[in-house]
Amino acid sequence: MAARIGGSVLVTGSNRGIGLELVRQLAESTSAPAQIFAACRDLYGAQALKELAQRHPQLLTIVRLDVADPVSISEASRVVGDKLIDGSLNLIINNAAINGSAVNNGDNPSGTLAVTGKKEMVDLFVTNAVGPMLIAKEFRSYLQKAADQSGPVTTGMSCSRAAIINISTLLSSVEKCRETFSMAPMYPYRASKAALNMLTCCLAEDFQRDGILVMAIHPGWVKTDMGGPNAPVTTEDSAKGILHVMSTLTEKHNGSLMDWEGNGIPW
Amino acid sequence: MAARIGGSVLVTGSNRGIGLELVRQLAESTSAPAQIFAACRDLYGAQALKELAQRHPQLLTIVRLDVADPVSISEASRVVGDKLIDGSLNLIINNAAINGSAVNNGDNPSGTLAVTGKKEMVDLFVTNAVGPMLIAKEFRSYLQKAADQSGPVTTGMSCSRAAIINISTLLSSVEKCRETFSMAPMYPYRASKAALNMLTCCLAEDFQRDGILVMAIHPGWVKTDMGGPNAPVTTEDSAKGILHVMSTLTEKHNGSLMDWEGNGIPW
Repeated sequence: MAARIGGSVLVTGSNRGIGLELVRQLAESTSAPAQIFAACRDLYGAQALKELAQRHPQLLTIVRLDVADPVSISEASRVVGDKLIDGSLNLIINNAAINGSAVNNGDNPSGTLAVTGKKEMVDLFVTNAVGPMLIAKEFRSYLQKAADQSGPVTTGMSCSRAAIINISTLLSSVEKCRETFSMAPMYPYRASKAALNMLTCCLAEDFQRDGILVMAIHPGWVKTDMGGPNAPVTTEDSAKGILHVMSTLTEKHNGSLMDWEGNGIPW
Repeated sequence: MAARIGGSVLVTGSNRGIGLELVRQLAESTSAPAQIFAACRDLYGAQALKELAQRHPQLLTIVRLDVADPVSISEASRVVGDKLIDGSLNLIINNAAINGSAVNNGDNPSGTLAVTGKKEMVDLFVTNAVGPMLIAKEFRSYLQKAADQSGPVTTGMSCSRAAIINISTLLSSVEKCRETFSMAPMYPYRASKAALNMLTCCLAEDFQRDGILVMAIHPGWVKTDMGGPNAPVTTEDSAKGILHVMSTLTEKHNGSLMDWEGNGIPW
């Protein structure tokens, strides 16, 4: 299981898939955080998350958060701020994301140029790139308090001090596009995640003076609603890998992209 | 001056700056294209472009095109299609772009995290990334006809055969973000251009089977309304460099990012 990665943690998109599994493994760890905020857009249907919260009532708080809606992000920030034990948040995992290609109708899979218009491009960009940026902005003061409580910036960076982890994807890599395009010709998803990578690096530069680490992790091709049944990686293994990688991060990983096994990925 | 780069050319954002200068140099070249379509969003105020068109009435056609509006892109595609001599278009230069940071008020420059919200992010993404993608989609059949008329795909790629050149920026490079962020902390512009780079590579993969080259060029930091008066490169030199680089492109440059002097830029 994961090493200790922070006293208080927020995970977005935690009602299913990798987000739910991250929350489960964090909650059930022998070195669990003191507080876990499990954020999701739609509480209706989040049955597995609700059951998990019932088993860990002191530890786990479910928070309503639609990352596509700036007002929802602000409200969630106030809710979390009110509940934080000492006003400090150590870790945000920006996991919530959408991919129109989850619905694949065979001959004309969603995400190809033929079926992509302005709406698909904007919808995915807002949820997958703008949302994580606005969350970083709205929750920054809590992260800064956590970093300050750990001593001067020279203390070094870590996920137990203050960090933002953006869940990205191998498909975000422009460098790897030539290798990966034919198997996943998803214009909106790729564009949104390439933008997320850029925002990750901008935030890493902006926040490093406060001792807040920002980087991105590719979770693997995972058996989730988004990844589909043919994916080779289980949600359990992906989440375990992500938590392990997070436990190893230092300032030298600030502004980087790595996979769930700890390998670097080119931009 | 530029070598011959195509029988028919479309340039977006051609009412000022680099776009206007590209059109001027193309029109005044001894090896000018047979047809130049100078597209711009707002014909009102495009005085320099109108004067240029009056000097080259057989060569230059001004086309209304708002790259942020899919309906405008479709209409411009029909207008250009009706006027193309043989239905084929050899080259599209996606130059139109916006950057909110053109208005810089000193202590709180536009584009920083503090002043960036969902609207700024979406506005720049739509104009700078979605627009060029939709133009590639809507004008694809004209490019394909031009490529077909040049013989089989094995003929090789070039800007005189069929190509899309997306005007990108050094600030689009995630790899270079660490070096460039402090002098240009422009979240919306950087995210939109990183997305454009990804779309450039997706289009390069998609269109290569038709013999259509797609790549991106950084025009330098240019003395334009966007670049400001402190920029070291004149529009004349930038446009001259871009046209020269375009004249040298082959299939080995498909899906790449280069600067106006022909140097590669990492993603």
